[in-house]
Parts: sequence; C-alpha cells; structure tokens
Amino acid sequence: MDIFKFMVPEIIFGRGTLSLIGESALRLGATRVLLVSDQGVVDSGWVDEAVRHLKDVGLEYCVWSEPTENPKDYEVDHGKELYLEAGCDAVVGVGGGSAIDAAKAVAILATNGGKIHDYEGVDKIDKPLPPLICVATTAGAAAEVTQFVIIVDTQRKVKMTIGSKSLVPDIAIIDPILLSTKDARLTANTGIDALTHAIEAYVSVASTPITDINALRAIKMITTSLRASVASRTNIEAKTNMAMASLLAGVAMSNAILGAVHAMAHPLGGLLNLPHGEVNSILLPHVMRFNLIACMDRYADIARAMGENVEGLSKRDAAEKAVEAVEGLCLDIGAKRSLSEIGLQEEYIMELSKAAAEDVCLITNPRDATVEEIAEIYRSAL
Amino acid sequence: MDIFKFMVPEIIFGRGTLSLIGESALRLGATRVLLVSDQGVVDSGWVDEAVRHLKDVGLEYCVWSEPTENPKDYEVDHGKELYLEAGCDAVVGVGGGSAIDAAKAVAILATNGGKIHDYEGVDKIDKPLPPLICVATTAGAAAEVTQFVIIVDTQRKVKMTIGSKSLVPDIAIIDPILLSTKDARLTANTGIDALTHAIEAYVSVASTPITDINALRAIKMITTSLRASVASRTNIEAKTNMAMASLLAGVAMSNAILGAVHAMAHPLGGLLNLPHGEVNSILLPHVMRFNLIACMDRYADIARAMGENVEGLSKRDAAEKAVEAVEGLCLDIGAKRSLSEIGLQEEYIMELSKAAAEDVCLITNPRDATVEEIAEIYRSAL
Ligand SMILES: [Fe+2]
Ligand SMILES: [Fe+2]
Repeated sequence: MDIFKFMVPEIIFGRGTLSLIGESALRLGATRVLLVSDQGVVDSGWVDEAVRHLKDVGLEYCVWSEPTENPKDYEVDHGKELYLEAGCDAVVGVGGGSAIDAAKAVAILATNGGKIHDYEGVDKIDKPLPPLICVATTAGAAAEVTQFVIIVDTQRKVKMTIGSKSLVPDIAIIDPILLSTKDARLTANTGIDALTHAIEAYVSVASTPITDINALRAIKMITTSLRASVASRTNIEAKTNMAMASLLAGVAMSNAILGAVHAMAHPLGGLLNLPHGEVNSILLPHVMRFNLIACMDRYADIARAMGENVEGLSKRDAAEKAVEAVEGLCLDIGAKRSLSEIGLQEEYIMELSKAAAEDVCLITNPRDATVEEIAEIYRSAL
Repeated sequence: MDIFKFMVPEIIFGRGTLSLIGESALRLGATRVLLVSDQGVVDSGWVDEAVRHLKDVGLEYCVWSEPTENPKDYEVDHGKELYLEAGCDAVVGVGGGSAIDAAKAVAILATNGGKIHDYEGVDKIDKPLPPLICVATTAGAAAEVTQFVIIVDTQRKVKMTIGSKSLVPDIAIIDPILLSTKDARLTANTGIDALTHAIEAYVSVASTPITDINALRAIKMITTSLRASVASRTNIEAKTNMAMASLLAGVAMSNAILGAVHAMAHPLGGLLNLPHGEVNSILLPHVMRFNLIACMDRYADIARAMGENVEGLSKRDAAEKAVEAVEGLCLDIGAKRSLSEIGLQEEYIMELSKAAAEDVCLITNPRDATVEEIAEIYRSAL
C-alpha cells in the first residue's frame, strides 16, 4: 500500500432528502443560491420542488437551466455571469452529470475568475469555492461525490478534465425518489456508467483497500438491481439500490480514478457530443477484453461479485466470466452494441485515438495502450 | 434503507505521511499551531518529529502534552488556556484516542468558549472549530476520523460523549510507521478496540451498506494481521494493515455508532479510569453472546469474515462461530480475561450498570438491555 489520499463530501442519502436542500444551504451560510440544472430536470418537476424547499427556509434563489449534455465552455460563462449579476453566494446543482459539472464549473469561476480553460488539469484552483451542494437525479455520473469536472472546449472540440479537492461538494444529497422520472434508456445508460466507474476503479493502478470495498459492493448491487430498475419506473427498492451503488462507485472512482473506457469515451463526447453512458456501455466489454491480461485476479473478483460461479475455473477463464457477465447485463437492458449505430464513422478513429491516448484517465488504466491499440479497440466496437 | 448521513475527514494514509503535517496545516490557513499530544507519544519521539515538520514550513507552534488516558475536563481547560494565551489559530492532535479527544475538546472551547460540559450530547456546538488535523499513533481508537469526543467529568466520574459533525477533523493523517513504537500490550488493546468498533458498527441498528463494507473489511484485516502486529514491532506490513483496518472500522463506527460494549466500557473508564481497549477485549465476547439472538445472520457474516468455515451449519451455530473466533483471537494476543483481574469489584456493578443503561451507545445496540441484564453481563465478565 503506497501513500494515498481519500476524500468524499458529507453525504445525505435517502428517500425524500431533496427536502433537506434548504436547511443544508443555510447551514453552509448561503443567503442567495444559484440553482443549476438542465431542461430535462426542469420538465420532470424536480427544480420546482427544489425551489420550494429553498423558499421554505427563506433563501433567495436564481435558476439557471441552460446546461446541455456534455456541458460547454460558453454555457459555463453564462452561468458565471448570472451568478455574479444576481449577487449569489452559494451554488446548488440538481441533475445528472451534466448539470452538476456545470454547477461545479460555475462555482470555480465565481470565486477564482477567468475562463474555465484556465483550470484544466490537476490542482489549478487556488481560492476556495462558494458553498456547493449537489443533488443527484440520475444513478450513474456520481459527479456529486467526485473531485472532477468535465467541460467541453468547443473550439478544440475536446473534453477538459479539471481535478481538485476543492471540487468535492460540501454536501451531496442522494434521493432515490428523483430516479423515478428517468426513462428506461436513461436508467440503463447511467447504470452502465456507474458499473464502468466501479470496474475501472477496481482495476485502477491507484486502487486502495478503501476504494476496493466501495467498487466491489457497487458491482454487486448493480448486478442485482439494474435490470429491475430499467424494467420499472416505480420499483423504488431497485432505484434505492442503484442510487447507493452509484454513490459507492463514485466514492471508489473519485479516489482511484478511472481507465481506458473513460479515456476513450471523453473524446466521443467532446468531438461528436455522444451521450456518455451510452458510449460507455458499448466500449466497456471491448476495453475489458483488452485489459484482461493485466488483471486476471481482479477480473475474477468482479465475476464473483457479479454472481458468476468461477469455482474450478482457471484464472483466465474466471476473468473471462467477468466480461461475459457485463455483456449479459448490457444485453438484458437493451444497451446499444456498436459505435456506428450511434453515429461514429471510421474516419474519426485516428483523431479520437490520439485524444484518448492523452486523456488523464489512461494513466491509471492497468494495461498500457498505444494510439494504435486504442484505435483497434474503437474499431472492434464500431 | 432509511435516511442516513455519512461523513469522513479528508484522509492521508501511508508510511511517512507524518511529514505532510506542516503543509496540511498551512493549506488550512494555520499560522500558529497548538500541538496536542501525551507523555507516551513525547517519549516515543513522534512529537519532536511532528514539531520538526511544522518548523520546516515556517509555522509557529506550542506543545501541550498534559492529557492522560481517559482525558479529564480540567485538562481540557488547561489546553484551552494555553491555546488562547499563545494566540494559536489551529489545533494538531498527535496520539491515540486520549490525545486526539483532548485536541478536539480544546478545539471546541477555542472558538465556542465555556466549559466542555456545556457541549455534552449531540449537536450542541454552534461555531465552526479552528482548523483541526489529527495524526493517529495507535491503530484502534480512530478518533482521527470520528464525529465524537469523550471526556471524563471528574466531579460526576462519568465519561461525557459529545457528538457533532464539527468534530470530524479537517484532515486525518494515518502513518503506519508511528505504530512501530507501541509495545505488544498496547498493540493488542488498541487492535481489539478497532475490532470492537467494526463488530458493533456492523450489528448496529444504524448500519448502512456503506458502513457495512467498511466494517466487514476491517474485521477481515484485523483477523489476518492483529496477531502478527502484536508479535513484532518491526512487521511494518502488519502495522500497515492494522492502520488501514482501524481507519475502516472508524469510518464504520463514526457513521453507524456503537453498541453495548462501548456503553459498558465508558463507565469503567469514567469511574475506575481503566484502559479502554483492555476493557473492550474483556467485555466483547460476553456482549456478543448477549446480542447473538438479535442478529444471527450478521454474526454469521462476521464469522465468515474471520475465516471461519460455516458451511452446512445452522444459523445459530454459524453465529456462535463469530464469538468463538473473537475469543480465539483475544486468547492468542494475550488479552486479559476478566474484569476483576484489572480491578473491578462486585460492589461497583450496579452503579456501572445504571450509567451504561444511560449511555448513548446503547441506543444503537441490536438487543435491548435493562439495567439488570447489563449487570448480568458485567458479572459474567468479572
Ligand atoms: Fe462516467
Ligand atoms: Fe472504542
């Protein structure tokens, strides 16, 4: 065990905890809140409910719901302007990964100034952020617990990763009730995103015993609950289990970082604006096959966590069971099978592969990958 | 799953991380630090080393090493006076449970004023504490990660429990190298304290999936590493595993709270000043027998985590294996077997039992216990 650091926000988990948003903001000293969300969450009614809880405790607020999937640099600028014009002193994000990443990005600019591009990389943020509360509306992205923000640089068409302890929100609120308005496809995509976080964290070269236990439990819970959660909007037990699994996977990946799936997914989001979860569900089995020789024991653990019987199998065959279990799960929940199906053409592959090879997530991948090897994985997933 | 909150400090773990104490304090804005420790830690040389790292980054400091085992209210008053007189603006605790509890208590008074008695109970602390860094020198108490402080009221001869999110330190530093100066007896006692934290958290009525995974992993690591750690001061791998196990057990118990062992141990510390870990190691098997009918499935999990073969056993027999495994471990590491051996006389038992019945830790114990039942457990351990 080498030296490591570990950090998670204060977590409030459970059905109905959205109602604690107001008193949580008050406790952090907020008086006027910028509530960051997106149009989908507004349509689902959760923004109205969040606003009601802010009003209930006498907080002033301003709603900004411009962020889109794969939030963009210019959107963040608008959010910052609104924050300053309205005289806000706290940020509350309510949404999936996109809205929460936008909320974090606005919080950076609110106290640190400049452009979001100035903070690309690790530990570039000097000044403390304003009080920041994040409420998850999907079980997957887990941006509400992580120390990362991902924003698209629209000029360069790349996803910028910003990493800093300051980006761990003060409070993360995880209310499984909010998952009941997600449709089956979003439930499936975000669920596989959570599974990808857990698997990449578990085989990461930066994993530790404390990230391992979170990752393995997440894998186990996703295996037993994702199918049921995709199958029914009203199965609140499955939603609660998926909310917990996403949280555990987020705790694991924020501290153990990720791997080649995310390194390869980021350029697809930046260049082609493809949905993150969908991309992950296509890439995950292909990357797992590539990584297998680097971590067969760990894959065998994953197979066991996914309920596979690996008794008497060779190490290699046991590891293979993990890949098969992931493919079986993806098949059952109707995940897309190929990148061409969602719009990727062969001509983009070299550009994507070069970008993936530069992505920070590749550093913790258990197997080294050249640009050509990455291209080969993209092709296998075409 | 009901609503729950979960909170841990920023954690820095690993060999040599004591050296990060200075830059950590600087990062939190400290200029003049009150370093709280105890005589044992001073003698071991770790206070000198900590001071060196504070000096290296240009911090002023003041050392206060008065706290004794089961730290007392009047000691805390002295620490507070020193903090104010010396014009400190941050607190660093270096030690086991006693020194760190004293450090936290001084931090409360530093910004909130008054007497430590004013804060007994839950959520009585209004003002934020000064920056607080805690460095663990034993693998057991885990006060460096918890939201609790325990201080002896010397007039009433009881241990006061203070619980508040403000008591979670800003940064916990866990450096396994510091464990190499502990003798076998302290290693054994603190190790069983950690095991008790993990077991009580795992069967607590306030347990959650996130505390469960921490508790179970801690139990597993203590089973495989405590014997070796007691056996050798220089087995740094065993020390590292015990440091990690203590951390995980602390994360579990700070958030799931404890049970009857701690409820019964607290009065023994308050009334008779007996060492906490030693008391736990005597009480633990007796309380486990009492609790067994309340949580047989969970005891079977504990037995499995301790490496017992429970295949084909009845639920009850599997649960019994957990108690036997704990007894076997205590025997191997030479733990004391009876309370009379360490100074308890029958005449104290009713007073102790009444105090234990009022202890906050009893609320989360899985089996209800009357004063008479508690007295019966004390007697069985005499
Ligand atoms: Fe992701
Ligand atoms: Fe304890």
